[in-house]
Amino acid sequence: MPKKSKVITVGLIQAKAHKEPAKNLSLTLAKAEKAAKDGAQIICTQELFSTEYFCQSEDHSKFDLAEPIPGPTTKAFQNLAQRYKIVLIVSIFEKRGSGVYHNSAAIINTDGAILGIYRKMHIPDDPLYYEKFYFTPGDLGFRSWKTPFGKIGVLICWDQWYPEAARLTAMQGAEILFYPTAIGWHPSEKAKYGKSQHNSWETIQRSHAIANGCYVATVNRVGHEETTDNGDGIEFWGQSFISDTSGELLRKADLDETTLLCDLDLGKVDTARTHWPFLRDRRIDAYSDITKRLVDE
Amino acid sequence: MPKKSKVITVGLIQAKAHKEPAKNLSLTLAKAEKAAKDGAQIICTQELFSTEYFCQSEDHSKFDLAEPIPGPTTKAFQNLAQRYKIVLIVSIFEKRGSGVYHNSAAIINTDGAILGIYRKMHIPDDPLYYEKFYFTPGDLGFRSWKTPFGKIGVLICWDQWYPEAARLTAMQGAEILFYPTAIGWHPSEKAKYGKSQHNSWETIQRSHAIANGCYVATVNRVGHEETTDNGDGIEFWGQSFISDTSGELLRKADLDETTLLCDLDLGKVDTARTHWPFLRDRRIDAYSDITKRLVDE
Repeated sequence: MPKKSKVITVGLIQAKAHKEPAKNLSLTLAKAEKAAKDGAQIICTQELFSTEYFCQSEDHSKFDLAEPIPGPTTKAFQNLAQRYKIVLIVSIFEKRGSGVYHNSAAIINTDGAILGIYRKMHIPDDPLYYEKFYFTPGDLGFRSWKTPFGKIGVLICWDQWYPEAARLTAMQGAEILFYPTAIGWHPSEKAKYGKSQHNSWETIQRSHAIANGCYVATVNRVGHEETTDNGDGIEFWGQSFISDTSGELLRKADLDETTLLCDLDLGKVDTARTHWPFLRDRRIDAYSDITKRLVDE
Repeated sequence: MPKKSKVITVGLIQAKAHKEPAKNLSLTLAKAEKAAKDGAQIICTQELFSTEYFCQSEDHSKFDLAEPIPGPTTKAFQNLAQRYKIVLIVSIFEKRGSGVYHNSAAIINTDGAILGIYRKMHIPDDPLYYEKFYFTPGDLGFRSWKTPFGKIGVLICWDQWYPEAARLTAMQGAEILFYPTAIGWHPSEKAKYGKSQHNSWETIQRSHAIANGCYVATVNRVGHEETTDNGDGIEFWGQSFISDTSGELLRKADLDETTLLCDLDLGKVDTARTHWPFLRDRRIDAYSDITKRLVDE
């Protein structure tokens, strides 16, 4: 039991994307408003919630889906944040300038101001996940932000496979790591590899909670999307979850649309870090090779 | 399926410690010999296998249990390695010099030579695990060694909670990470926290396999040991295991004495690292703060 409890409520919006961005925006705003009315204080959207997952092909016309920060999407969420005095983490396909686009998240504070931007640092590139075509890797580094409801860090999807990203965010004091995500199965691979792939994904993120004594809140999309003829699409596996500081799941969604609400006692972060004193014993004198690609013979 | 299979067999000796070091040594040698006859090519002992877990109290007389490397224990295992043309990973309470002791592992090659030494880098200190009293933190860094059966890394117990340690070892090419371990429950805490503690321990190590696309082989002791009046001892939780590159358990022991044998296809390491190309996308330009204690505001 923590000596000093501080219970807050987070909300994760797991949804199916429609073809029309305006519809995704209005539905997500409505779900965020409902979550706020239900008590959520920090609400996080899924990755690129306003569109289908357009990275299934390399198509220049898709850059038209991007918008600046601030822009119409942040404006809409800023109004909501101010109205309900909540914190919002809003995934945005960011147009920073001609030819420079990012996979970003805007962190909006309770007063409606943009508290910060996180730009996805690790960009994947795999069949049907052609993100390196669209997104310049982030140049703002790993960040955490102080909000009235606790200190939060935001990382995006592919970042979740990197212990370095979680560590660097937690080292800035983050008590919760949020991961807006878009991951799913290639339908043709699902029977053979699907269970193992999903299990790896959940496990690596639970491990970040354990290693850093913090909460992890991951929100993933659902539904089958086929935005190209080049394959059989992606079946997004949903299963958004919230892990406690020991890696146990407090809430887990299935493969339906849902908004996960969960109470977190942030007092437990201090307790976890004291009783499992991993941060005390890090060998910072011996980690410098982490900045190498490999340690060659 | 890997393009190029290379199947090898590892053996992990999970045992109960007796009071007499000579008995532990002879029993472990016999078990290693049996494993070799059964086909094991790389065999790993549990942490500090030759003694009870003496760190339950701070007792200067316990330093007499230490020995140099090379020393009588390595000699015995070197003979065995040479006789069976096997690789042995042997945990040793190392006396390096007066007042300088390490929690080490000797890596012995198929020709009986000592291929290298790993000295535990992260030293815990918790009630009944007073290791900082006994062990100077390692000064040899994280290492991996090429053997006739593949490239291996060795880390010890508390190291297993540090993604940095696994990463730095894998970055040197390790295909298998071995973790000699001594971890268990405080009997008074077991009912309330035991399941969660064990689960955290298994999860964080499976995550190292996932993040680095390698195998993880962990060998832990079993049995209740009470070497001091200061508490009710430790119930070592055994459950040694081998994880594949996706974090799935290939073998898992229970709480009995056993020697786990497991075939590993090292060809899968290359396949895993290609199909889950995490190493490709590490943001080494943005990781330098890993060498800080915290990133202060």
